[in-house]
Amino acid sequence: MSYLKASEIREILKVTQQEDVISFAGGLPAPELFPVEEISEISQLVLKEAGTKALQYTTTEGYAPLREWIAARMNQGLGTSLDKDNILITHGSQQGLDLSGKVFLDEGDLVLCESPTYLAAISAFKSYGCSFMEIPTDEEEMDMDALEKVLSTTSRIRLIYVIPTFQNPTGRTWSLERRKRLAELSSQYNIAVIEDNPYGELRFEGEPLPSVKSFDKTGYVLYTGSFSKIFCPGFRIGWITGDKEIIRKYVLVKQGTDLQCNTLAQMTIAGYLEKYDIDRHIAGIVEVYKKRRDVTVQCIRESFSDTIKFTNPEGGLFTWIELPEGVSARPILEKCLEKKVAFVPGGSFYPGGNKENTLRINYSNMPIERIERGIKIIGEVVKQYMKESV
Amino acid sequence: MSYLKASEIREILKVTQQEDVISFAGGLPAPELFPVEEISEISQLVLKEAGTKALQYTTTEGYAPLREWIAARMNQGLGTSLDKDNILITHGSQQGLDLSGKVFLDEGDLVLCESPTYLAAISAFKSYGCSFMEIPTDEEEMDMDALEKVLSTTSRIRLIYVIPTFQNPTGRTWSLERRKRLAELSSQYNIAVIEDNPYGELRFEGEPLPSVKSFDKTGYVLYTGSFSKIFCPGFRIGWITGDKEIIRKYVLVKQGTDLQCNTLAQMTIAGYLEKYDIDRHIAGIVEVYKKRRDVTVQCIRESFSDTIKFTNPEGGLFTWIELPEGVSARPILEKCLEKKVAFVPGGSFYPGGNKENTLRINYSNMPIERIERGIKIIGEVVKQYMKESV
Repeated sequence: MSYLKASEIREILKVTQQEDVISFAGGLPAPELFPVEEISEISQLVLKEAGTKALQYTTTEGYAPLREWIAARMNQGLGTSLDKDNILITHGSQQGLDLSGKVFLDEGDLVLCESPTYLAAISAFKSYGCSFMEIPTDEEEMDMDALEKVLSTTSRIRLIYVIPTFQNPTGRTWSLERRKRLAELSSQYNIAVIEDNPYGELRFEGEPLPSVKSFDKTGYVLYTGSFSKIFCPGFRIGWITGDKEIIRKYVLVKQGTDLQCNTLAQMTIAGYLEKYDIDRHIAGIVEVYKKRRDVTVQCIRESFSDTIKFTNPEGGLFTWIELPEGVSARPILEKCLEKKVAFVPGGSFYPGGNKENTLRINYSNMPIERIERGIKIIGEVVKQYMKESV
Repeated sequence: MSYLKASEIREILKVTQQEDVISFAGGLPAPELFPVEEISEISQLVLKEAGTKALQYTTTEGYAPLREWIAARMNQGLGTSLDKDNILITHGSQQGLDLSGKVFLDEGDLVLCESPTYLAAISAFKSYGCSFMEIPTDEEEMDMDALEKVLSTTSRIRLIYVIPTFQNPTGRTWSLERRKRLAELSSQYNIAVIEDNPYGELRFEGEPLPSVKSFDKTGYVLYTGSFSKIFCPGFRIGWITGDKEIIRKYVLVKQGTDLQCNTLAQMTIAGYLEKYDIDRHIAGIVEVYKKRRDVTVQCIRESFSDTIKFTNPEGGLFTWIELPEGVSARPILEKCLEKKVAFVPGGSFYPGGNKENTLRINYSNMPIERIERGIKIIGEVVKQYMKESV
């Protein structure tokens, strides 16, 4: 079923490839911010200095200097104590999810997740034959008492999958207290947690929070990160972090899966990180996305009736609109597509289905004029639809 | 168990990273033949012309011009009738195997393979909980009567995995007749075949043969190919070919696995193929490998007793030595490692184990002086060991 949903989104994304369509549907970073010239320069430099080593097979673990940088970065910003042997380079954070399914899941196992959650995580895990149990969420995301109740009463739970910072699709962020509590529950019930954090570096305001992994005392928390949103997604370079013993297991599994990630791409990122100031680059992305977030939120306030709820995200790529109960986003999408505006209906993000009164809005990929125009159109369609439904 | 074997080989490969070790253990192409300068030039050109498109997310299927080239190449050289929609770009041919496991295999299913077969295919499939049945082989590889007998008497067979051209580890090539027969049996018993062909372009002599896929009338044959051995392995770009309906399924599965392959790497290969003559480049590789094969075979003839058997491969990267029954290659490896020479004991290539009197020799990665010295040392150790064992 999740595959069906994925293909549904593929259909929406096909429509959005038309130039004149205003699309809030994808999760694409703003391409005008990719460091094209720097990448061209550094990749030449790598090929000149490392020569054939940049094109040959290398270790499955990944390029050591890149893994060292990632460990240091996480230790500095996320409260962890890691070194390179805690890190495996993966094909984006998406592959960290797939490998986690391979390591942890068998037919009939259970994965707990936020309700709603990242659609492609559902696809990744579901291919290993698991089922899902959604844990209810509020403004601070997962309800920890509900989680504990499920953990204490349910068998065959193998993974808890969460996106604690600027969640996809809701844009919400877990509080410090809930992060601590999740790490504690993971230890107490011996259940692995996957902390997925592809957007965490893109904070517009508020204080950065330590990762769930930083509170992990028993080694049950794994963490996936990515260069897709802070560098470029086309390189397909991300990573998974965990205790050394479990990472060794992931390395063996990745070896059988695809041997390793692109050598030159890994060396190019490492070269860029050495020569250029990634913090300055990220600050540039944050500045642009913050403006787009501001415009999106402002337009939602102006164009929608006040019976809706929505997130004002502190960072990341998405906001999330909740329509009144009983209003479905699917016929609204159809009307919007006629007017050349696209978004993803929120129902797709619930593994169990049947929550249809929600919309995910991506604001990172378009200039603000298009955002203004697009949100206004969605707002009008929603108002019209709600009027007709009454 | 296959993971254990993979890790065993990792240990051997670690030893071989010492500069003074003569290694026949890996499967590495000769790095001095990688087109470093052309890659540097073309990747700059791609970034200049395509700009941010070369760094953004793209379709899961892969870069269309590259898929078109692959289809045309296969049609020309392998007797197929394909277009780009028969092709999915994968992270090396290895990922084609992994995705095949995901598409076809459940816990308890059975995979048929040549005896011996490619070690990392065993790892790839085994992670989906299957078991293996080895079909006996001779000079023309798989015994087709034995295969038919198994097909007609065994349940839960889901895949037949074969490497018909310059097989890994044996270096042997399937005859035309067996290729036809395999395609027929696949149709007759409705069992999918994976035809793995990473070495087929590297033919030193003899007539090229059509692929098994070219005889496929019912769409049960899948084919995996790779740029690793004809361009460079560090890019991690290969492909899987099949009927359009099944490839659509693979695309959905890959989407959940890692979204897509590196955009810039795909465009760079396509750019290279447009500007440069890959046939000339391949001819250069063939010239070098043929000499190395000649020296390897010559040295084996001179340094080993005539109670051994070995392959004189018509192409590819490997030859295969069979010692007399009862002689194990593992203690021989230990002695060779003391003398700083490495190879992979053949036992690792039998999913069921217990065939220990074989050695795989890779000749593509070293200059001929080192090959001469290394084979001589292995020959001496083998002779000494056989004398002591008598």
